[in-house]
Amino acid sequence: MREVYAIGVGITSFTRLEYPLSEIAAYSGMMAMKEAGFPNIAHLYVANMGGCALNHQAGLASAVVDSMSLTPAGATTIENGPASGASAILQGFLGIASGMYETAMVIGAERMREVDNLESTEFVASLTHPLAEYIYGVTLPSLAGMFTRLYMEKYGVTSRHLAMVAVKNHANAMDNFFAHLHEPITVAGILDSPEAMTNNPYVADPLRFYDCCPVSDGSACVILASAEVAKKMNKPLIRLAGVGQATDTHAVQEREEPTDLLAVRRAAAQAMQMAGIKPGDVHVAELHDAFTILEIVESEEVGFFKKGEGHLALERGETSLTGKIPINTSGGLKAKGHPVGATGVGQAHEIVLQLRGEAGKRQVKNARVGFTCNFGGFGNNVVCLTFIREE
Amino acid sequence: MREVYAIGVGITSFTRLEYPLSEIAAYSGMMAMKEAGFPNIAHLYVANMGGCALNHQAGLASAVVDSMSLTPAGATTIENGPASGASAILQGFLGIASGMYETAMVIGAERMREVDNLESTEFVASLTHPLAEYIYGVTLPSLAGMFTRLYMEKYGVTSRHLAMVAVKNHANAMDNFFAHLHEPITVAGILDSPEAMTNNPYVADPLRFYDCCPVSDGSACVILASAEVAKKMNKPLIRLAGVGQATDTHAVQEREEPTDLLAVRRAAAQAMQMAGIKPGDVHVAELHDAFTILEIVESEEVGFFKKGEGHLALERGETSLTGKIPINTSGGLKAKGHPVGATGVGQAHEIVLQLRGEAGKRQVKNARVGFTCNFGGFGNNVVCLTFIREE
Repeated sequence: MREVYAIGVGITSFTRLEYPLSEIAAYSGMMAMKEAGFPNIAHLYVANMGGCALNHQAGLASAVVDSMSLTPAGATTIENGPASGASAILQGFLGIASGMYETAMVIGAERMREVDNLESTEFVASLTHPLAEYIYGVTLPSLAGMFTRLYMEKYGVTSRHLAMVAVKNHANAMDNFFAHLHEPITVAGILDSPEAMTNNPYVADPLRFYDCCPVSDGSACVILASAEVAKKMNKPLIRLAGVGQATDTHAVQEREEPTDLLAVRRAAAQAMQMAGIKPGDVHVAELHDAFTILEIVESEEVGFFKKGEGHLALERGETSLTGKIPINTSGGLKAKGHPVGATGVGQAHEIVLQLRGEAGKRQVKNARVGFTCNFGGFGNNVVCLTFIREE
Repeated sequence: MREVYAIGVGITSFTRLEYPLSEIAAYSGMMAMKEAGFPNIAHLYVANMGGCALNHQAGLASAVVDSMSLTPAGATTIENGPASGASAILQGFLGIASGMYETAMVIGAERMREVDNLESTEFVASLTHPLAEYIYGVTLPSLAGMFTRLYMEKYGVTSRHLAMVAVKNHANAMDNFFAHLHEPITVAGILDSPEAMTNNPYVADPLRFYDCCPVSDGSACVILASAEVAKKMNKPLIRLAGVGQATDTHAVQEREEPTDLLAVRRAAAQAMQMAGIKPGDVHVAELHDAFTILEIVESEEVGFFKKGEGHLALERGETSLTGKIPINTSGGLKAKGHPVGATGVGQAHEIVLQLRGEAGKRQVKNARVGFTCNFGGFGNNVVCLTFIREE
């Protein structure tokens, strides 16, 4: 297989955006084109979940390829729920690794905040099993709530640990211009203050408001290219060195041990093995914290910490910006925001900035190996990516 | 790039199917697994357009991979409107060509006949440009109607030519057990009989009822594999020898010459060039006849006939089962049916049967080179495939 590099990235603010979905997508694409010097694009991948259901726009890639004046380049829309973004990057990787394309633009985009016909929790619940979960009233927050309760009982995670994830990620987002939430919070403020029950109500016990990511619009882009193209550019060489993907049972209740996220474990192992690294080699990671509990559990499943000990590492500050393995320097889904189709590409965007040394106040010192985990459904389809800065 | 082979195919009837979408998809997958001897599957691609909008099932591949007990294999849903099927085959091709996967299962599936929340013409209109077309009342049949009128005026195509496409494809479908329509028709019956205005009413002048494909549920599957896997099987070797994809303006009105389908022309040229063949080398083809006019125009744009002369070749019987280049031996979208996400895979299914010599009464003699054209939107995203039987 040929080697694959990230030669350009772009992003919109993750927030409420009142533009057509195709134009939201094209914006981050244009930002990436600008910084990559407008290379010829052989194929466009667009990651999106709700275009047809929410925005009356099916075949989104066919619209964006025209919005960006990239016709007649081929265009493909990837819909893997919240894992759409990294799934599209994986397909772009294959396009270049195979020798078929010299360049591939990967855009993730979603517009889901204000839509006519479908409430956002109902929309996201289309990821659950229609016969084994949805008809019994299951939603993603309710699955996450039950999962969190089990995890608390089994491993001793407390509400304070969950709040620490939120506090850390909100703090990181303060230095990210494109983040959805610029709101510093404290554990005391969201758990102990007299207003906490009002300002931080329960969403799905034990998960509260500040344990859940916001509903965001937005897009992000990464342009991939062959070594030949990448090496002509006057920029740090960021290689997409490993890709991994794994699935698990569609219905969470069918898992032998529901507190294990086996798809995360497998996808991470693949992405690290292909890159020739171990968990301890990673300098900065973006994990899929749609709910605070997920950052803790994923930090274990990808191998940064032992199973059941992620919350202890968090407590010791090991995942903060100056810790052993900084997690979600961008603010994560929790504070940067979660436009579902865009999220996986947004994670890659952050890692590319970090490895280039362009992350400003949230820069992790000497970061040369970065890692992302993009989580679909309730862990039924997971894609992990390893990026390495070449010297 | 490594060579890629089709080692197994499966299909459901294209008809009204009252099963969950994921189970409709899994059925054709199982048929393909059975005839391929249940190979290990490295990655599952599922092509689908309306899962989230129509069936409350986003991330369909994540559901199907579990229904088929293929976890923890990676799974990816491709949504390129009616071109989803061949788009997914193209991505599967890249997965194997790159060396990443030894096998890839590609399923196309749609359930769109009886749905709660969205009428089918309205659903399909989500492929049009939301600002330049849809808000002015454009639907796919209306675009096709305007396109047909222009083509008639420019090239002398008549309503009788359109009817001839329908008659031919209905006749072919009589010998296809899995076809939606088993209804022999005649030009006299649908155009000249006293009942014609009742039985064959105008849908979008000049297109009438029998010029339009039915709305179908269904799925189809093709399993792709590397040469190493394929050559161990005791079966004719069918190589996916060429893939091509091209896009055109999203809004049809923006095309310099609206009667040209440039994306078809380009995608076909790529798919033939990669396979090292010319249009005259093709023995059997499946073209995307969602409307009768499209079969005529595509037969020109892919290079079988000169521009503006497709209807004359049709008149001479050159596209019939015993003609020079038999088109839509399966019955085509017109009579086999058009479950949008499944269609491109259904086309590949027919070509694999033909090249194996397993097409029964509709077998084209000595077919060794087959070709498919899968058409998205109104020609804004087109994927063509060339299959060659190796001796």
